[in-house]
Amino acid sequence: QGFDPQLQARSLAATCANCHGTHGQARGDMKPLAGMPAEKMLAALADFKSGAQPATVMHQIAKGYTEEQLKLVAAYFAAQPARR
Amino acid sequence: QGFDPQLQARSLAATCANCHGTHGQARGDMKPLAGMPAEKMLAALADFKSGAQPATVMHQIAKGYTEEQLKLVAAYFAAQPARR
Repeated sequence: QGFDPQLQARSLAATCANCHGTHGQARGDMKPLAGMPAEKMLAALADFKSGAQPATVMHQIAKGYTEEQLKLVAAYFAAQPARR
Repeated sequence: QGFDPQLQARSLAATCANCHGTHGQARGDMKPLAGMPAEKMLAALADFKSGAQPATVMHQIAKGYTEEQLKLVAAYFAAQPARR
């Protein structure tokens, strides 16, 4: 299909970089996402979305993505080298 | 209906406070929302949602709300006293 999923994943994940750092390599107390296993991220996002996991903004941000988009984002961050 | 729209508006708007300040009375270079006319906010949110207005996170955040929820949030901030 015409649309490059890699490109779509990267543009979706660009929003996360605003708080979680470029490629999710967060500094300071913000949770790094780089290298996080996709299943772990998808489980956390599902808990944010359902409200099982209270949050400041993540419960609302997670609602703006489809399941398909969340899978793309989770796969994108899982493939990023974790910051040593 | 059982659900108190005032309460719902306040809980939806609580997410915005993380960046735009409590009651939207932002300090520094973050855009204050307190006292902004609802139509102006709804137009801005529609542009974020459609992509007409590029943004760092607002394009994605706006996607997580229904039109009904955006109206509640816009009415909530319009009713907040703007910071002098």
